[in-house]
Amino acid sequence: MSDLSKNAKSGSRLKVGIAGLGTVGVGVIKILEGHAGILAARAGQQIEISVVSARDRGRNRGVDLAGYGWCDNPVDMARRDDVDLVIELIGGSDGPALALAKETLGAGKSFVTANKALIAVHGKDLAGLAEEKGGSLRFEAAVAGGIPVIKALAEGLVGNEVTGLHGILNGTCNYILTRMEHEGLSFGEVLEDAQRLGYAEADPTFDIDGIDTAHKTAILAALAFGTAPDMENLPTEGIRNIAPVDIDYAKELGYRIKLLGVARKTDDGVETRVHPAMVPLAAPLAKVMNAINAVVVQGDHVGQTVYEGAGAGEGPTASAVVADIVDIARGNNYPALGVPVVALKTLPAIPIEKHTGTYYIRLRVQDRPGVMADITAELAHENVSIESMLQRGKAPGGGVYIIMTTHHTVEASVSATLEHFTQLECVLETPTMIRIEAF
Amino acid sequence: MSDLSKNAKSGSRLKVGIAGLGTVGVGVIKILEGHAGILAARAGQQIEISVVSARDRGRNRGVDLAGYGWCDNPVDMARRDDVDLVIELIGGSDGPALALAKETLGAGKSFVTANKALIAVHGKDLAGLAEEKGGSLRFEAAVAGGIPVIKALAEGLVGNEVTGLHGILNGTCNYILTRMEHEGLSFGEVLEDAQRLGYAEADPTFDIDGIDTAHKTAILAALAFGTAPDMENLPTEGIRNIAPVDIDYAKELGYRIKLLGVARKTDDGVETRVHPAMVPLAAPLAKVMNAINAVVVQGDHVGQTVYEGAGAGEGPTASAVVADIVDIARGNNYPALGVPVVALKTLPAIPIEKHTGTYYIRLRVQDRPGVMADITAELAHENVSIESMLQRGKAPGGGVYIIMTTHHTVEASVSATLEHFTQLECVLETPTMIRIEAF
Repeated sequence: MSDLSKNAKSGSRLKVGIAGLGTVGVGVIKILEGHAGILAARAGQQIEISVVSARDRGRNRGVDLAGYGWCDNPVDMARRDDVDLVIELIGGSDGPALALAKETLGAGKSFVTANKALIAVHGKDLAGLAEEKGGSLRFEAAVAGGIPVIKALAEGLVGNEVTGLHGILNGTCNYILTRMEHEGLSFGEVLEDAQRLGYAEADPTFDIDGIDTAHKTAILAALAFGTAPDMENLPTEGIRNIAPVDIDYAKELGYRIKLLGVARKTDDGVETRVHPAMVPLAAPLAKVMNAINAVVVQGDHVGQTVYEGAGAGEGPTASAVVADIVDIARGNNYPALGVPVVALKTLPAIPIEKHTGTYYIRLRVQDRPGVMADITAELAHENVSIESMLQRGKAPGGGVYIIMTTHHTVEASVSATLEHFTQLECVLETPTMIRIEAF
Repeated sequence: MSDLSKNAKSGSRLKVGIAGLGTVGVGVIKILEGHAGILAARAGQQIEISVVSARDRGRNRGVDLAGYGWCDNPVDMARRDDVDLVIELIGGSDGPALALAKETLGAGKSFVTANKALIAVHGKDLAGLAEEKGGSLRFEAAVAGGIPVIKALAEGLVGNEVTGLHGILNGTCNYILTRMEHEGLSFGEVLEDAQRLGYAEADPTFDIDGIDTAHKTAILAALAFGTAPDMENLPTEGIRNIAPVDIDYAKELGYRIKLLGVARKTDDGVETRVHPAMVPLAAPLAKVMNAINAVVVQGDHVGQTVYEGAGAGEGPTASAVVADIVDIARGNNYPALGVPVVALKTLPAIPIEKHTGTYYIRLRVQDRPGVMADITAELAHENVSIESMLQRGKAPGGGVYIIMTTHHTVEASVSATLEHFTQLECVLETPTMIRIEAF
C-alpha cells in the first residue's frame, strides 16, 4: 500500500497538480473548488490544488489561477514536494503526456488521466510502473466521459466473466448520424455544420474515422477480459462512407446505424472491432441519440447491464476525473487494469475475417434482365445465404439499388462475395456493406 | 484502516461466512467457486468460504456444502476466528439479520448484505458501528440487483451534487405493468399468473404496495444527498389500483405507467416518494420493460446518467454481493453512506402536498348536460389549470370517462380538487390520479 493511501485515512491533505487547462481542466478546478466541502467529507481529506500547467499562462479561462503554483513544463510537476497526484489533461499517446505519466508514476505518485490514446497504447507499461512504485493509475474519464463504466467493469462487475460489450463511445459520430437521420442530410453537410457549432473538431479525423472509438474499445476490452490494451488487432472503420440512402434503408429494415466499439470473448479468443453497424430499433443502443454515449456489457452472472450518459464536455469529463481523485484519496488502490500486470492474459486475437454475423449489402446495378441471376450466382458461390432482398426504383447516377441482408455468415465469405460483385459488369459502384449487431 | 484491508494487500486469504442459502446465497457460492482464480487475481487474495448457515441444513440446493463449516445460529458466525466477513442473505429489517449485522460489525469485521429493509431502517446505526470498529459495511445488492448503482452514487458520481434520481426498482411491478399493457389484462389477472410463474411472491405485498421500492429509494436518496436513510418521510403507493383503462389512456397521451422511486433535492429540502407515474414514451424509464430495473441520476456536473439491468435473481444479485466482497478484499474501505456518520446532513423533508408537478386525472361521471360545468368550476376554484381534456364513449358500469392532464400544479390543490370531485353528485366513483414524471 502506498504512502498516499495511508495518508488518505489520517486526515491530511491530498495535493494535486493539473497539467492541461482546456475545458476539462477548468471543469476539474470548478468542481474541486465549488464542492471542496462535500469532497473533503467524501474523500476523508482535503483535496488541494498545488500547481497547474498549460501552454499559455495568460489566457483567460474564467477561473482564477492566482492561488496555484505554475509549471511551464508539466513534467516538472511530478518532482514537486507539494504534488501527491498529477491530473493529466494534455492528450496524445506520447510526448509530454507520456513523459509526465512516467515521471509521476516512477516517483511513486498517483496519476489520473482522461487520455484514452495514452492508456490504449501504453496502458500496460504504465500499470506496471504504478504497481512497482506504489502509486495509483486511474483513467475513468478516458472512456465515455462522465459515465462510470471503467468502474463498472473493474469493480462493479468484478464477479463476472465478461463475454462481450458494445459501445457508442464517440459523441461526435453519434451526433452526426442522428442529424443525418433526422434531417436527411449527407455526412459532409452535417460534419461542416457540426464543426461550425463546435460538436466536431477542426480536424475531425480521430472522431469520424473511428480512432477515438478504437482507443476506448481497447481500454474497455482490456478491463473486461483481463488483457493488456491492444491497438494492433483492432480493425477500425469510421462513418465517412455512410450515405443517407443506407440510413433510410436501415430504418425500412428495422435498424438504425451507429458507430460501435465491439469486444467479444469466445473460446477462440478475443474479437475487437470498430465500425458502423445496423442495430435493431428496439435494442438499447439504437435509442441512444445525439452526443450521448452508452455501453452494453454482457456478464456471465449479471446478464446485460447498460450505462448511458454524456460522453464528453467540461462537466461530465471533469466529474469522472474527480471520481478518480476521490477514489485515490480514500485509498481505493488496486491494479490499474483490474489485475496485476503479471496476471494479464494473452488471448488469441480473432481476425475479423473469422467474424460470424449478419450483414447488410447495398449494390447499385444496371437495370436490365439477368442482373439478379449474376448477383445470386456469386452469393451461392460463396455460400452466402440471403435473409431479405429489396429492389427499389432508379438510383441517383443511374441503375437501381439492390439491398440485401444475409443470414449468419462468416465475414471472409462476405468479403469474397463483395470482391466478386465489384468485378461484375452489371455492378456500377463499389458495394456498401454494413454489419448488423443485436445490441 | 482495518486489519482486514491491510491483509488484503499481503497475499493472505479473506475468509467469508454466508448466512442464508436461498437463490442468492447459492449464486454467491457458485461465483466464488467457479471464478475462484480470476477473483483471487482481481481481489489480491484468495476468497474462501469458511462457514454457511441456513434454516434447513438438509435441503438439496444444487451446490455441495460439505467443504464448509455450518452454523445453526447465523449470529455465531460473527464470533468465529475463521470469518473475516459475513454475507447476510437472510432478509428482514430486524430479527437475525440485524443481530448478525451488529455482532459482525461490532467485532470489527466486514458485513455485506443484499437486505434493503435492514439498510433502509438501520443504515445509519450500522454505518456508525462499522466506522467505529473499522469494518466495512456494503450493500450493492440491496438496490437494483446486479446494476452497480450504489457504487455509481457513492463513488463514480462523487464529484457531483446529485439533484435528483428516478428509478424503476422493483422487477415484479414492472413485469406486471408490462404484461397489463401488452396483453390488456387486469392487475389481478397478471398478478395471479406472475405468482404461478415465480415472478411474484406468494405474499406479494412488499412488491406491489411499493414497500420494496421505498426501501431502495430511501437508500439511494441517502447516498445521493449525504443524509441518513429515512423511511418516515417517504409517501408510498403501489400498483394495485392501476386499471387497464389508465394504461390505455396513458398510451394515447404519449405516456407509459411505471412504478417509480423518486428522490429530489431542492433549496427547500428533500422530496422522496414512491408511486405509479406516467412517463413520456421517449424518456429512458419508459423503455424499461419486464423485470428490468433502471435508475436515472441527475448530477450537477455530469448531467443525466442512466443505469439499467436485471434487478433481481440469482446471478445478478450474487454478482453485486461478490463485487462488494472484492472491494473489501482490495481495501476499498470508506464510510458506508459515503461520508462519516457525523457528516450526514439532516435536510427538511418536503411533504408531498408541496410537490409541484403535472397530473393525470380520470373521472367516471354521469352523461348529462352540466357535468362539465361542475367539473371545471371545481378546477377553477382550486386554481388547477388543465392542459388537455378528453371525453370518451360509455364507461363500463355506466356514465362516461373524463380524462384530464394538468399544467404544473401544487399537489395540495390537486388533492383538494379530487376531494371536491368526490362530493359531486355527477361523479360516479373515486377519481383516479396519477402523477406525471419526465424521466
